[in-house]
Amino acid sequence: MGHNAIVGQSGGPTTVINSSLAGVYSVCKRLGAHTVYGMRHGVQGLLKEDMVDLSKTLDTPAAVELLQRTPAMLLGSCRYKLPDPARDPAVYETLFALLAKYDIGYFFYIGGNDSMDTILKLSDYAAATGSDIRFVGVPKTIDNDLCITDHTPGYGSAAKYIGTTIRELVRDSTIYDLKSATIVEIMGRNAGWLTAAAALAEDADCEGAAMICLPEVAFDPEHFVARVEELQRRSPSLVIAVSEGIRVADGRYVAELGDSALSVDPFGHKNLTGTARYLSSLLSHRLHIKTRAIELSTLQRCAAHLSSLTDIEEAYRCGGAAAQAAFAGQTGVMVALSRVSDNPYLCVTKTHDIHGIANLEKTVPLDWINADAYRIREPFLDYALPLIKGEPSQTFVRGMPGHLAL
Amino acid sequence: MGHNAIVGQSGGPTTVINSSLAGVYSVCKRLGAHTVYGMRHGVQGLLKEDMVDLSKTLDTPAAVELLQRTPAMLLGSCRYKLPDPARDPAVYETLFALLAKYDIGYFFYIGGNDSMDTILKLSDYAAATGSDIRFVGVPKTIDNDLCITDHTPGYGSAAKYIGTTIRELVRDSTIYDLKSATIVEIMGRNAGWLTAAAALAEDADCEGAAMICLPEVAFDPEHFVARVEELQRRSPSLVIAVSEGIRVADGRYVAELGDSALSVDPFGHKNLTGTARYLSSLLSHRLHIKTRAIELSTLQRCAAHLSSLTDIEEAYRCGGAAAQAAFAGQTGVMVALSRVSDNPYLCVTKTHDIHGIANLEKTVPLDWINADAYRIREPFLDYALPLIKGEPSQTFVRGMPGHLAL
Repeated sequence: MGHNAIVGQSGGPTTVINSSLAGVYSVCKRLGAHTVYGMRHGVQGLLKEDMVDLSKTLDTPAAVELLQRTPAMLLGSCRYKLPDPARDPAVYETLFALLAKYDIGYFFYIGGNDSMDTILKLSDYAAATGSDIRFVGVPKTIDNDLCITDHTPGYGSAAKYIGTTIRELVRDSTIYDLKSATIVEIMGRNAGWLTAAAALAEDADCEGAAMICLPEVAFDPEHFVARVEELQRRSPSLVIAVSEGIRVADGRYVAELGDSALSVDPFGHKNLTGTARYLSSLLSHRLHIKTRAIELSTLQRCAAHLSSLTDIEEAYRCGGAAAQAAFAGQTGVMVALSRVSDNPYLCVTKTHDIHGIANLEKTVPLDWINADAYRIREPFLDYALPLIKGEPSQTFVRGMPGHLAL
Repeated sequence: MGHNAIVGQSGGPTTVINSSLAGVYSVCKRLGAHTVYGMRHGVQGLLKEDMVDLSKTLDTPAAVELLQRTPAMLLGSCRYKLPDPARDPAVYETLFALLAKYDIGYFFYIGGNDSMDTILKLSDYAAATGSDIRFVGVPKTIDNDLCITDHTPGYGSAAKYIGTTIRELVRDSTIYDLKSATIVEIMGRNAGWLTAAAALAEDADCEGAAMICLPEVAFDPEHFVARVEELQRRSPSLVIAVSEGIRVADGRYVAELGDSALSVDPFGHKNLTGTARYLSSLLSHRLHIKTRAIELSTLQRCAAHLSSLTDIEEAYRCGGAAAQAAFAGQTGVMVALSRVSDNPYLCVTKTHDIHGIANLEKTVPLDWINADAYRIREPFLDYALPLIKGEPSQTFVRGMPGHLAL
């Protein structure tokens, strides 16, 4: 049994994936790991032996706290998918030789679907070759589209950012007494979890998003325009949240509707118009109102200054639970969050066989969506409100949040 | 002398214009104003007698605190410019009749250039007609382009948001080990104050924005591309901050360079490409790197959850100083901030004759800009760092910042 542990981060950023790293590191050390290595840029770093000894960076409790408030990946990321071991065993032979060289007993990968595929393949290969190295996955994605787990670490913070931003945009866009529409484009190609978070903005002090369009439901531009016109009879300025992935009934993305010969960039290349920009043009053209398109873009996945404390703590717990599971002998598993109750909110960690998780996608239940009114129903609020709760203390340096750097 | 005061908000939003409203209200009440009216949507509200008694909303100290953390305008805004009184005296006769009807002795307008023009015209008209009503302006604009005042309330918070966002985007965009450019488009048509705030992001834990392009300096696309290529030899992923208002040597906006017959929206209308989108296409076309365009759009002027405490307090002080000045008999003046020293930072309020202020524009000094390297020099940091300092306690409700609503 190897004496050391190794951990990598993979896929797209969230604001709390570093909190999971902190959890893996801290619990591995407590359970007796000699060295905890961090792979730079995921498995690609391991293949190049580009690793760091994490105790050099995480040498104080304050550093661990700061890491938990640092967005994106301390270790860097990659988008590397392991090949089929039957067809290409060489990569696996190299990887396991390196794991032996560095005396690794415990291997952790923090990421989304592709990262869980890595855990699946490595643990299968280990089982097939009699290796005793334990492979455990830690979930993360702002998209919240992983199966089995109640939600994914990273989602709560992105949802808090989206809810807060919609509240602020409603304030901003309703100050003039004229008809306008602000279309806010939110990430999530097939799953509407992030866009649904716009529903959190509504409260006694905020009218919230007037309409919310999820990719789970076919989008009808004519119905959409009619609804905007109807709502503006009562409320002239509307904020509308749309998923980047909404599609019309024939399956084309709304963003593609503008992708005609007309729509090319200054260099003659075809231009994906953007969902919000297309809808903004559509409303301006049809209703002659002032419109504005806003893409939250990568801001929604890196705004660590607005992280949810619940999310930070759960991400840490998932990392810690992964370390516990590995040291207890588990392998080929992912840590999942299992909700015991909504109110009071209680969620515990469990481990699940990785084979039932990788490469599946979870979308928003259709009965949580009132598609005709472009509204999100109450069960979503019960589900999501606990996840955005709480604010971590922040370390501001020179007026801005401080981060941990390698 | 009228017993009541009236206050309006005008122009574009900032996150602290409500803090100035709180200052005007609180000091007017303390100095003996009977009723403090708020005009809905500026002077247009007064003309329609659409006003509120502010004591109904600001009835507790907690409400005043919450107002100071609420972005945009509690009272609503307008973009209404008073006509020339010589040519169109009717509006003035109406306005002064209404001021008499409501027993107004003190009139406050919180806004930018256009709002100061309103104070100028009303105070001139009062002087010409022997009215004893006092008219005082309170500055506000995220653009920081007002003359006389060291800086404008609203700028510090927007700068804090921009610096913080650049820090987070640098984290987000540098996780992959490949050549990329993230172009961040920032407001400010003629003055680069907001874009320069990207320079605040750099510190020991953050490499900061690699390049910063201000509208004060003519933009050369070829030089820009060459500089990106050069910087990427050392650092593959770059975050670049550009003002929406950068122009090439012949005076055309960079955003217009893409405004050809090629660039029309799906409905055949000419499309302003956007500065960041144009540069993103340019770099992708010329250097074959991954690029992303991000427009901070209205987020940079409404993100009250990241307001600077210094800015909130100065906005309040400017409102309070306006009330003091009016009650002391001053009229036809704007409150300005006058810096005594950078470090320790000390800034006091003064009043200035409105005639020397309205309709002028202040830009970033050219010797604060290292245009060849697309960098901002040290004096800007000395100027701006005190303005973003401090974080207000926030009232989070259901995981999001609470706001005050009428």
